[in-house]
Amino acid sequence: MNKLKEKIISDGKVFEGDVLKVDSFLNHQIDIELLKWIGEEFRRRFDGFKIDKILTIEASGIAIASSVALCFGVPLLFAKKSEGVNVTGNKFFSKVYSFTHKCWNTIYVSAEYLSKGEKVLIVDDFLASGSAIEGLVDLVSQADAEVAGIGICIEKSFQDGGMKIRTRGYKLESLAIIESMDNRTQEITFSEPN
Amino acid sequence: MNKLKEKIISDGKVFEGDVLKVDSFLNHQIDIELLKWIGEEFRRRFDGFKIDKILTIEASGIAIASSVALCFGVPLLFAKKSEGVNVTGNKFFSKVYSFTHKCWNTIYVSAEYLSKGEKVLIVDDFLASGSAIEGLVDLVSQADAEVAGIGICIEKSFQDGGMKIRTRGYKLESLAIIESMDNRTQEITFSEPN
Repeated sequence: MNKLKEKIISDGKVFEGDVLKVDSFLNHQIDIELLKWIGEEFRRRFDGFKIDKILTIEASGIAIASSVALCFGVPLLFAKKSEGVNVTGNKFFSKVYSFTHKCWNTIYVSAEYLSKGEKVLIVDDFLASGSAIEGLVDLVSQADAEVAGIGICIEKSFQDGGMKIRTRGYKLESLAIIESMDNRTQEITFSEPN
Repeated sequence: MNKLKEKIISDGKVFEGDVLKVDSFLNHQIDIELLKWIGEEFRRRFDGFKIDKILTIEASGIAIASSVALCFGVPLLFAKKSEGVNVTGNKFFSKVYSFTHKCWNTIYVSAEYLSKGEKVLIVDDFLASGSAIEGLVDLVSQADAEVAGIGICIEKSFQDGGMKIRTRGYKLESLAIIESMDNRTQEITFSEPN
């Protein structure tokens, strides 16, 4: 069992509606030893791949993607959710549904930071319905860049996001794949590594 | 001239209304060598200080704070701006005005992640009016924790945020202090290090 799965077992909390709360160590407060390990583990899993840029989505993907980008030594780009007054120039837009906030968000990146032919590693904290990842893949595709791979911390395999993404042929690496979880018993079952 | 100032001079863009766009290297796309340097530089400037936790605010503070937290080897906590369905339990709330988005936001942290007596280093990308930093200081104070210091990437000294915070007696370290900038000539003048 790897460090992330151990942490999920010890500190994760299961709530009704298939909600896994990991905000004591992953997406509100962040355990720094775990963060370091996550970066190194993705570096290991995508060893030998050409990666030009790490792409994630604000806000909870940023810490993870920062650690990954520091391990790869390549720039980080994060898709934004709302339009600030400082954003000028051409942008690529997509729409994603937030499982956490139960709403649709428009996301975008400035076109000048995603270039044709760039090999992009997409990174995020959760994969459930896959909407966020599909939005990020869509941004990469609009730029004529290339998805080199997708790195996820926690995948919920009882939702169909992972299946949809693997069916499209992408190399998807999830550090913890949850097969089932029970909010009454707090029992969490992981899939074997695929 | 340090690495951040050099980058501001070479890649920053000045727009009307005292807007400095640094989204090619600091808060949309992030230069990873610079990010690493920022973490190490804050580690150096707060050397000898007891730091238990790094606190920032989503979204653009997170990458910077991640690098700082990795350098200090302490947990990172980021204040959130909207309430997700996964957030339960007691929270500390504050209000901050966003210079970028021209609106007020409610920010919060879960009370369980800021404890009495903890020494907190607050980190953010910009300091202008100081509203975000004052909100973060307020959260620390509600927890009876202690502000060990404040680390800012870019301070605009022609706005009064820095002055207000220094007057309150906090150790504030800014990596680049901009005295003036001109959107017609693109000239940017830095203050001498204080």
